[in-house]
Amino acid sequence: MAVYTEIADNELEAFIAGYDIGAVLSAKGIAEGVENSNYLLRTEKGPFILTLYEKRVKEDDLPFFVALMQHLAARGLNCPQPVMNKKGEALGRLAGRPACIVTFLDGMGVKKPGVAHCAAVGTALADLHRAAADFTMTRTNALSVDGWRPLYDAAASRADTVMPGLREATEAALIDLEAHWPDDLPKGVIHADLFPDNVFFLGQRLSGLIDFYFACTDTVIYDLAICLNAWCFESDGSYNITKGRAMIEAYRKARPLSSAEIEALPILCRGAALRFMLTRLVDWLNVPPGALVKPKDPLEYFRKLRFHLHCRAASDYGLAE
Amino acid sequence: MAVYTEIADNELEAFIAGYDIGAVLSAKGIAEGVENSNYLLRTEKGPFILTLYEKRVKEDDLPFFVALMQHLAARGLNCPQPVMNKKGEALGRLAGRPACIVTFLDGMGVKKPGVAHCAAVGTALADLHRAAADFTMTRTNALSVDGWRPLYDAAASRADTVMPGLREATEAALIDLEAHWPDDLPKGVIHADLFPDNVFFLGQRLSGLIDFYFACTDTVIYDLAICLNAWCFESDGSYNITKGRAMIEAYRKARPLSSAEIEALPILCRGAALRFMLTRLVDWLNVPPGALVKPKDPLEYFRKLRFHLHCRAASDYGLAE
Repeated sequence: MAVYTEIADNELEAFIAGYDIGAVLSAKGIAEGVENSNYLLRTEKGPFILTLYEKRVKEDDLPFFVALMQHLAARGLNCPQPVMNKKGEALGRLAGRPACIVTFLDGMGVKKPGVAHCAAVGTALADLHRAAADFTMTRTNALSVDGWRPLYDAAASRADTVMPGLREATEAALIDLEAHWPDDLPKGVIHADLFPDNVFFLGQRLSGLIDFYFACTDTVIYDLAICLNAWCFESDGSYNITKGRAMIEAYRKARPLSSAEIEALPILCRGAALRFMLTRLVDWLNVPPGALVKPKDPLEYFRKLRFHLHCRAASDYGLAE
Repeated sequence: MAVYTEIADNELEAFIAGYDIGAVLSAKGIAEGVENSNYLLRTEKGPFILTLYEKRVKEDDLPFFVALMQHLAARGLNCPQPVMNKKGEALGRLAGRPACIVTFLDGMGVKKPGVAHCAAVGTALADLHRAAADFTMTRTNALSVDGWRPLYDAAASRADTVMPGLREATEAALIDLEAHWPDDLPKGVIHADLFPDNVFFLGQRLSGLIDFYFACTDTVIYDLAICLNAWCFESDGSYNITKGRAMIEAYRKARPLSSAEIEALPILCRGAALRFMLTRLVDWLNVPPGALVKPKDPLEYFRKLRFHLHCRAASDYGLAE
């Protein structure tokens, strides 16, 4: 659920006047994106999305995100394209925050992805990786393996209040991942948060990818592990290998996988599950009193982690032999 | 803050196919309206608002609200106009709830209304009352004087936890209002909730009124008392008589006030303040644990009530002598 920064009267109008997009006709706060305030704008030139960057997004990272969206859009990927103001800048300030206007993408997230959706995501993810291959800026992934122990430390003492035994199991997984995390696989820009609410569809057709605010430079195939976690489990916690196969095969059709990448898939899947479990756990244990945001369940990802602990090879995820 | 009912995949598509508005291109949950789930739809025919009616709105009342919006729109008032489906019905069902699609109105609510906004609201309110004069359906106002004692009873025992002395002061106001509430003033359809977030402006021009889900049949001029409460106090709690004058004079230019209506203004303002104080107080005392909705401050309206207790005549609100 999004945060809403209120924009003072006239301030919006003055901000929009700095762009060549006509006058504002309406601006509605929308429930999209977790980290920022988003408004669906209608101007005389059509619909746009206005994003105010809240404190969880570092201002220093914004030029990376904006340049990445411009780069990907220029290569034909359907993603929001930053709109330049009359000074030629994509980033401005509104309501005391950095702000950006991006183009509006048609389409809707799916709540219950089917096999075809998973295949489409596999293709789109590979397309993203290929389109970003010549992007020159880099951004460290603060939520990769080096970032997990600080999260674990912040949550460990209270982890068992969420589920008895959670602390020990988490620590064991962490120690294993720290010892064996692969460092020699191809690196590049990854989306790092391509969950179903960040992928738009029109019917069965994938119409766009949004929310690049976790994008970073990391092991490319780790992004596929994140997507397998986010898309291929059923609501009862079971892994749907048909969906996994559809996603992996669609991905490697568009971007071939090396044998080292294939071999690493199980550990990358464990890492992805631990990463989302840990951030959810920290959020879960630190809900401020009176918070308007309901935290996501960390145990959903603990159950996924447990599944991955039984996987030995990429074929366990559906990779065709 | 709005509630969000999630709409299952395909269900929206199937619902929209029952209308002549083209295919859905996007649907975003928006923070508009307190009682219902609202989505900003984009279809091949343009923008629309889709409302799912949540349990706080009685299903039996929906035909009244829908017919009223149709009636007002037919008389040229800028308000959402229900869109008929292919069966000629304005009300359908979606996600297990009654649902309605209405036309999209351009404009934005103002956070800090100025004098010109108050005048525009006075005119629009009178226009609404005149346009509704020949509307034949009726709906009892469950939140008029007869509805206040049950609210008081529900809150009385804990009222002093909000502010010492609140119970006694509230009861005294209630007894006074029950004894002297006028019953012989002109009746008609009132909006009953015309707060700043329900009035859209484009610049200084009022572009539309929304959210008719408290509309009912009641003392017409009581609606003006509600608006004086909602629009003419500053954030420090002071009453701005210049705004009050602008609103009242604009109103009576479009719909002349009888001397009985003018005389009743102070008691109607007290009643309006008590009504919003009581519903806010009950909500405040009954926030469920883990609620995602932040209740509004009842004491804001208690302070307004205290102001009204010092007013003896409509001139105290700015009516020109």
